Amino acid sequence: MSDSTKQPPLALVAVDTPPRTKPSNYPEPFFSRMLKREKRPLGDHFGLTNFGVNLTRLFPGGESALLHRHSKQDEFIYILEGRPTLVTDEGEIDLEPGMCAGFPAAGRAHHLVNRTAADVVYIEIGDRSPGDEGSYPADDIQAKMAAPGHWVFTRKDGTPYG
Amino acid sequence: MSDSTKQPPLALVAVDTPPRTKPSNYPEPFFSRMLKREKRPLGDHFGLTNFGVNLTRLFPGGESALLHRHSKQDEFIYILEGRPTLVTDEGEIDLEPGMCAGFPAAGRAHHLVNRTAADVVYIEIGDRSPGDEGSYPADDIQAKMAAPGHWVFTRKDGTPYG
Repeated sequence: MSDSTKQPPLALVAVDTPPRTKPSNYPEPFFSRMLKREKRPLGDHFGLTNFGVNLTRLFPGGESALLHRHSKQDEFIYILEGRPTLVTDEGEIDLEPGMCAGFPAAGRAHHLVNRTAADVVYIEIGDRSPGDEGSYPADDIQAKMAAPGHWVFTRKDGTPYG
Repeated sequence: MSDSTKQPPLALVAVDTPPRTKPSNYPEPFFSRMLKREKRPLGDHFGLTNFGVNLTRLFPGGESALLHRHSKQDEFIYILEGRPTLVTDEGEIDLEPGMCAGFPAAGRAHHLVNRTAADVVYIEIGDRSPGDEGSYPADDIQAKMAAPGHWVFTRKDGTPYG
């Protein structure tokens, strides 16, 4: 809410809210892999700060994120539509509507990939623990939260992208 | 997970997980008002600690909680089935599947009531900020988190129930 004097709505139709305008914070070549993903930040409309909730759509061929784990943040997903594959560093499983999965901080690396011809829609939740870091076992990238909500990405040797 | 050596599952069918055995932590006469409510704690199965996620069902006549607000905890709901009424201290609105609402700490007092003849099912999320308190504008009760996950309820004058 840019206007802090405006009262938040009582409720919203999730799919009618605007998608995030910036498709991803990743640098190239990872940014382009996220173009078949659309996130609607839901919690922000109500002024929530302790955690974020997104309604996320993966078009065919899309993926939720790079294979990753957080050091401090817990994450959770609940599938609403479609059949994504949950890929982790300890195996994979096909999901369907009504299935859920959780990813504790420092747990399995994970991401969702849509290998089907239909869209996938799910709810994703992540808290905003300070000092969080992201690690990516399959890609030469690492992430540190420099300030609340502000991520800095580098190669694993610490050199910057771009 | 009582067996800490057991790896959490990759994913679960939410509705197949067991409901919480204790229907409510409220003392009487409030406990009995929660008997038409069934909560399945989902995040705990995966070892999440920063926030909780429940799949919650309200049978006809059920309510999600007493009208309440938290001092520290943010909350969020996403409706999966049925048509509950969101009652707040600033007005009410009928919800339907695909609608969502968020309740920031120290924001509107709120609860869901099922005034229909059909079940209501929704996902609810709340973080676990330490030092949280619950306040209840319509009832003579107050809550303080004495230890993580352990709530103490008293009357508003501080005298104990029971």
